[in-house]
Amino acid sequence: MTRPATINALVSPEGSLEILSSQEVRRLKDKSEGGLYRLFRQCALAVLNTGVETDDCKQLMEAHSDFDVRLVPQPRGLKLELLNAPASAFVDGQMMHGIREHLFSALRDLLYSNVRAASIAKFSPDDITNIIFYILRNAGVLEAGRAPDLVVCWGGHSINREEYEYSKEVGHQLGLRAMNICTGCGPGAMKGPMKGATIGHAKQRVKNGRYIGITEPAIIGAEAPNPIVNELVIMPDIEKRLEAFVRAGHGVVVFPGGVGTAEEILYLLGILLHPDNRDLPFPVVFTGLRENGAYFEMIDRFIRNALGEEAAEKYRIILEDPAEVARTMKQGMVDVETFRRAMQDAYHYNWMLKIDPVFQLPFEPTHQSMRALELHREQPPHLIAANLRKAFSGIVAGNVKEQGIRQIAEKGPFEIAGDPSLLAPLEQMLQSFVAQNRMKLPGASAYQPSYRIVSGAA
Amino acid sequence: MTRPATINALVSPEGSLEILSSQEVRRLKDKSEGGLYRLFRQCALAVLNTGVETDDCKQLMEAHSDFDVRLVPQPRGLKLELLNAPASAFVDGQMMHGIREHLFSALRDLLYSNVRAASIAKFSPDDITNIIFYILRNAGVLEAGRAPDLVVCWGGHSINREEYEYSKEVGHQLGLRAMNICTGCGPGAMKGPMKGATIGHAKQRVKNGRYIGITEPAIIGAEAPNPIVNELVIMPDIEKRLEAFVRAGHGVVVFPGGVGTAEEILYLLGILLHPDNRDLPFPVVFTGLRENGAYFEMIDRFIRNALGEEAAEKYRIILEDPAEVARTMKQGMVDVETFRRAMQDAYHYNWMLKIDPVFQLPFEPTHQSMRALELHREQPPHLIAANLRKAFSGIVAGNVKEQGIRQIAEKGPFEIAGDPSLLAPLEQMLQSFVAQNRMKLPGASAYQPSYRIVSGAA
Amino acid sequence: MTRPATINALVSPEGSLEILSSQEVRRLKDKSEGGLYRLFRQCALAVLNTGVETDDCKQLMEAHSDFDVRLVPQPRGLKLELLNAPASAFVDGQMMHGIREHLFSALRDLLYSNVRAASIAKFSPDDITNIIFYILRNAGVLEAGRAPDLVVCWGGHSINREEYEYSKEVGHQLGLRAMNICTGCGPGAMKGPMKGATIGHAKQRVKNGRYIGITEPAIIGAEAPNPIVNELVIMPDIEKRLEAFVRAGHGVVVFPGGVGTAEEILYLLGILLHPDNRDLPFPVVFTGLRENGAYFEMIDRFIRNALGEEAAEKYRIILEDPAEVARTMKQGMVDVETFRRAMQDAYHYNWMLKIDPVFQLPFEPTHQSMRALELHREQPPHLIAANLRKAFSGIVAGNVKEQGIRQIAEKGPFEIAGDPSLLAPLEQMLQSFVAQNRMKLPGASAYQPSYRIVSGAA
Amino acid sequence: MTRPATINALVSPEGSLEILSSQEVRRLKDKSEGGLYRLFRQCALAVLNTGVETDDCKQLMEAHSDFDVRLVPQPRGLKLELLNAPASAFVDGQMMHGIREHLFSALRDLLYSNVRAASIAKFSPDDITNIIFYILRNAGVLEAGRAPDLVVCWGGHSINREEYEYSKEVGHQLGLRAMNICTGCGPGAMKGPMKGATIGHAKQRVKNGRYIGITEPAIIGAEAPNPIVNELVIMPDIEKRLEAFVRAGHGVVVFPGGVGTAEEILYLLGILLHPDNRDLPFPVVFTGLRENGAYFEMIDRFIRNALGEEAAEKYRIILEDPAEVARTMKQGMVDVETFRRAMQDAYHYNWMLKIDPVFQLPFEPTHQSMRALELHREQPPHLIAANLRKAFSGIVAGNVKEQGIRQIAEKGPFEIAGDPSLLAPLEQMLQSFVAQNRMKLPGASAYQPSYRIVSGAA
Repeated sequence: MTRPATINALVSPEGSLEILSSQEVRRLKDKSEGGLYRLFRQCALAVLNTGVETDDCKQLMEAHSDFDVRLVPQPRGLKLELLNAPASAFVDGQMMHGIREHLFSALRDLLYSNVRAASIAKFSPDDITNIIFYILRNAGVLEAGRAPDLVVCWGGHSINREEYEYSKEVGHQLGLRAMNICTGCGPGAMKGPMKGATIGHAKQRVKNGRYIGITEPAIIGAEAPNPIVNELVIMPDIEKRLEAFVRAGHGVVVFPGGVGTAEEILYLLGILLHPDNRDLPFPVVFTGLRENGAYFEMIDRFIRNALGEEAAEKYRIILEDPAEVARTMKQGMVDVETFRRAMQDAYHYNWMLKIDPVFQLPFEPTHQSMRALELHREQPPHLIAANLRKAFSGIVAGNVKEQGIRQIAEKGPFEIAGDPSLLAPLEQMLQSFVAQNRMKLPGASAYQPSYRIVSGAA
Repeated sequence: MTRPATINALVSPEGSLEILSSQEVRRLKDKSEGGLYRLFRQCALAVLNTGVETDDCKQLMEAHSDFDVRLVPQPRGLKLELLNAPASAFVDGQMMHGIREHLFSALRDLLYSNVRAASIAKFSPDDITNIIFYILRNAGVLEAGRAPDLVVCWGGHSINREEYEYSKEVGHQLGLRAMNICTGCGPGAMKGPMKGATIGHAKQRVKNGRYIGITEPAIIGAEAPNPIVNELVIMPDIEKRLEAFVRAGHGVVVFPGGVGTAEEILYLLGILLHPDNRDLPFPVVFTGLRENGAYFEMIDRFIRNALGEEAAEKYRIILEDPAEVARTMKQGMVDVETFRRAMQDAYHYNWMLKIDPVFQLPFEPTHQSMRALELHREQPPHLIAANLRKAFSGIVAGNVKEQGIRQIAEKGPFEIAGDPSLLAPLEQMLQSFVAQNRMKLPGASAYQPSYRIVSGAA
Repeated sequence: MTRPATINALVSPEGSLEILSSQEVRRLKDKSEGGLYRLFRQCALAVLNTGVETDDCKQLMEAHSDFDVRLVPQPRGLKLELLNAPASAFVDGQMMHGIREHLFSALRDLLYSNVRAASIAKFSPDDITNIIFYILRNAGVLEAGRAPDLVVCWGGHSINREEYEYSKEVGHQLGLRAMNICTGCGPGAMKGPMKGATIGHAKQRVKNGRYIGITEPAIIGAEAPNPIVNELVIMPDIEKRLEAFVRAGHGVVVFPGGVGTAEEILYLLGILLHPDNRDLPFPVVFTGLRENGAYFEMIDRFIRNALGEEAAEKYRIILEDPAEVARTMKQGMVDVETFRRAMQDAYHYNWMLKIDPVFQLPFEPTHQSMRALELHREQPPHLIAANLRKAFSGIVAGNVKEQGIRQIAEKGPFEIAGDPSLLAPLEQMLQSFVAQNRMKLPGASAYQPSYRIVSGAA
Repeated sequence: MTRPATINALVSPEGSLEILSSQEVRRLKDKSEGGLYRLFRQCALAVLNTGVETDDCKQLMEAHSDFDVRLVPQPRGLKLELLNAPASAFVDGQMMHGIREHLFSALRDLLYSNVRAASIAKFSPDDITNIIFYILRNAGVLEAGRAPDLVVCWGGHSINREEYEYSKEVGHQLGLRAMNICTGCGPGAMKGPMKGATIGHAKQRVKNGRYIGITEPAIIGAEAPNPIVNELVIMPDIEKRLEAFVRAGHGVVVFPGGVGTAEEILYLLGILLHPDNRDLPFPVVFTGLRENGAYFEMIDRFIRNALGEEAAEKYRIILEDPAEVARTMKQGMVDVETFRRAMQDAYHYNWMLKIDPVFQLPFEPTHQSMRALELHREQPPHLIAANLRKAFSGIVAGNVKEQGIRQIAEKGPFEIAGDPSLLAPLEQMLQSFVAQNRMKLPGASAYQPSYRIVSGAA
């Protein structure tokens, strides 16, 4: 890899949090273990690396080993000094405003999560739900007085041109109906809907369109937020990020993706299948081009097989009809509103949604934990979903996350074992992801699987 | 043509002018000759016809003969009742906000132009320049305190997909540099830059991006404003529209187009070549894909031949480099700002630009006036440009304007005569426009030329 | 009079109209008869003379004979250069923002009225009503979508401390109920309610409280707008100013005043007594301290005698109860809203109010016209009111307006003749105004009556 | 006391914090010892009791023993249900918006302080300074990008009409110079400057004038915030409140007051006399009417005697010249800005100001702690100031705070002992406060001293 072009810059805040306490400044400058410097530098670099489509965190860090970020307190607030910042964040030497905003969002969230985390020693599940609420509220994501309008878009960051154009058109139709977009804030199916919604909002004179990106420190390096994202939130880990999606969002649209998308689908179904959530309206649409039909059939079959027919009632598959996707979500928003009004539950946060602790507690993928997953049928569907979700989570980590990549580099692929009637379809699906280039960004190197299916008891 | 889908609706204003006097209401309802009803109905229909890519005004009127618009005064302002409005202006039965805004902009401008026109019997050239100023000011287009940032984009409404994508990317780069867009507000090269700039503005957090569309009653039917246009102005006629472009805009980017674009280029060069304007900075860029190279070479050759080498110094040709186009315009904006500050001339209106009355007075294309054009070399270059401009203007009218189409239906194509050293290259250029489908929208019918070159004395 | 302190300054616009056409600049600089320079200089001086409580226009002009105002066009808009401007308009050498705003409002209205006036040769009564509408709309006073909330406050500019405090408290109570204030914009009872409403609005977090001052060139010198006025409008003459009050305002509160207030009361009753207006809701309250009881009894008696008992039903007298005044006006606002909604008449302009042309046409007080007033009982009440109104108008002119003062200096007081049963109470009332110092500001000189009652036939 | 008029109401938020977590709702509803219900009810009642000039907290609580406040979560945010709320908070049955805002500010600060306090077990002085910062930042009081403009006004809540009018005029002059006001948010000298500044801001078109009230739970009942206060902050205790004044404010104006004002003066001088603060600019003006001259002479004499001549250089005494007060503060703001820019210290928070821990730690006035005060001269001036400050603090508590009043009711007045050369002037000053009615609000009952000077060793 050639040394990337870099720029030095002194930037003022755009958007939130411009004033820090002396304590906070110390904490951000602290390069020791407990300090925030290392994490902030990493997130800052990820944010600045926008538009550069790599999905390898480690590579990113190495390519920019001389990058540095320094806090410069000022009478009127705070500035950041950046040394050797990726040139892609700049236009004619000026940092893009959207990216400046992201830098300060990262700073805000790292400080806030850190303080909150420090202040509460041991979390109950209820605590976790509250902490997610606090982080989102502090980030300004939760707005009182707003009717449900937030559509979460999930799907691959590595999709082809036609799929990308399709995701834009879906965003356009959502935007024309004044709905807002929330994604994991990377490229591909996470960027397309925002771009499309921007045009839709412009046509409808929606001045404050929301393009919310929810990420986490371990993934942000692989999926740098695109600059259209105008509300960036960095959650502490993947579980809180996923919970943030389903509590702050009001519905989900899933585009074709890979193993990360599969993880998200299983997470979502695992929650919606919880008996307490049976009557809770939560619109879910799987959509793509007509040629994605086979892909969704495969997903659908996998779900029906693994989780049963009831699971399939939780979503609707719509092929190549963006307006219909948007109308379906719009109707879903109305249903959510009606339900919450009747229940006196908040529009801005889905307090009533029951999330089993198994979905809240961090899953640390290691060779041991991956091998130990309970992949059998002697459990209710929502727990099967939970375990399958973990399997996908480990594979994603092995593909793109720093820690995962390192473990696999050391000890070889994760082994996954269990009931063959679950694992066979799983393996089949994973292989087709590989075949369709849905595992990693298409690049020089061929995909090296981060997993190995070992049928037989766990 | 099958009867188009229509919708009835009662709409509230979006944006400007919501309160009318009793006099104004009467005038708008007045269906007699002096009244405004007929003109307002026609503009309203054009505005509502967005996205439907026809360029035949007459066809549009006939297809919607049962369309009607009625004023409904209300305690809190004014509403409009629409009967049999084109369904394309609606999303799920709700009129798009952008189009609602256009409706009320049309109403505002027709009322204002009408009053002003009535109040001044005979215009001097200076009066015309002031009247254009008043109409633009009344429309809110002239903003005090704003540095030069308005890039006029000209080019064909009928371009292919790649050319369209290119115009979007140029808009994107302009938007990333916080420049705003002004076009003739139809489809194609008039829509692409606005769409691109919308995304660029979103990334730069430019909240109040300007997408100005300047049109006129005779052309609006053929080139319905796209809903991204957030400042629509209807000038009284084509000459005032062109003057509005060069007085309110700070530079011009020309994309490949047809005869309408050629008209605009000749208008622009005719003005810039006026001796009084010699030192006035006014950035002009011709740009397109690499495959448009031949097209621009032809234009360039035609200009050098007809107007001389000095004319070719007024513009720069840039192929397939959107960032360079944007940087060139940005530098041009700086030059304009420096010059006007030195001269104490307004940023918002180019008072110093000298426009010869020949460019201000309406040119009514008829068989007689077209035949009488002075197409010879015994005049200064800016007047040659003026006459060539009129020739193109007549051809455009014959192609897409109601009156022009009718005349040609009655008496056959306009005849154009003059110095063969001017006419031969002209004919050659027109033929290549036809060959490249740049004359009309590609549709069912082949292009029927609206002109005939008859070399020999005028 | 010692030479007043003055300051030179270059000021940028605050608020409206910052961009002028070249025509408009020429017109404002034009010192010839048809030009606007003289009038603009006079209004500018008046506006700058804020807080200096003189009511003698001529004296003001003479004291500042070296005052000058020059237009300085700028790239970003327009600046004004002021030479020898009254120091009272400045705080530590900086012009108060409110006054800067007034300067540019004056400029806006003079230009606009002038153009409109020039454009329409001969006005019908309907034209006049429309022109007042255009001037108010151009000044931004007419807001669509706003429920009735504008309370016109009339009363003396020359009142004592307790009366002033009372007018403030009424304003406070109106402001607490989110009503807005419109006055003739001088000191005394025209300033108190605005000050009080400012505090009331602050407590109710009404961010955009409206303090509208409607004046005219002939009176502005005597009653300089106080800087709280945040919407200043200069109407062409007193009749249009009065019509503006009753068409844009939704109710009237009258404080104790002198002959000017009496003029306003008669104008108002003359209109409300028109048969066509019988059922139109229009809340009117006369209010003051308990010790003003005698004053209002006298007014009440005068009205009942001159105009009959029906006239007395048009208003309510409330003594020393600001909250009750405010509640009465609030209820009146509701009644107006209900009525206009039922009639589909605009909230922002009282189109339905019938105003007899006699109230619209300028009354030029001269010795001849004053002598010729028809002050007898052989006419309907609203015309008696009209003639009495003119009588008061002439006396006001003789007291404070430049032209009136000059005529009286030349030919002695105006003579007023007519039916003794009307004139005797009139004379009595005028004498008590003099006795109570309600005729002019208390100053060095004793009041010199500008009128003489000559009983006997007109 | 007759039972006060009350009203039941359901109110929506005005201003900040409308969305609470489930945890927060539980905490606010919790009536147990650790819960916030009791404190919130007390603050809510105090806030609602606006305009009722009592200064007896206990009386207030007893008079409204049936008052209750309940949280009502709603889909669009949070509402509060109030039972038997004081009618003085309402206009025609509608709660004043300013007071609604205060209610939700109280809720915000109690929740926030509580969480922060819980999260940090033991505070270092540096922690305290940071915590004050966090509370102020969370309340939105600290604004980045704002030049120094915040004038703290201290002075008696119990002053006569002329003194009140004078404090208004000082506020008016501060407002005309675009400075903002911060006070302890009670009546008298804490309300006058805000009212005056409101008018000054209106004249200068300062749309977002700041009227900051900083209070604490123990004092808010005695000094209900007036509704003009548009940023209310409830600090946890008196020491943090005082530190908030000097860190967030940029200068102090002291009006005549009583023992509370004396406490504030000693606090301020004690800090400014700290050797580390010697070169720190901090403008302080003591001001009043000409007849307050004797009062300030007494204070001045007391300070020179107790703290030395250097202390007297820290302030300027200006009698009956509001414009000069304002000019002095304006110049002080410039000095503060220059200094902080040179030091790169924040404009919004005075981090550099050294505050000795003795001024930060809560002083709990009891008979024992009051008797133990070190009132002798064998210590540096800033510590003499600290101890005298505590003496005054105890007297204030005995006058108006619930706990203080109860202790004195049980055990008689606090005894104060020490060096007679300090105590004699102290006693003299206190007696003149009593004589001038500066100890408590003038009411039915004569002032019962809450202290007794017992000369002799401490």
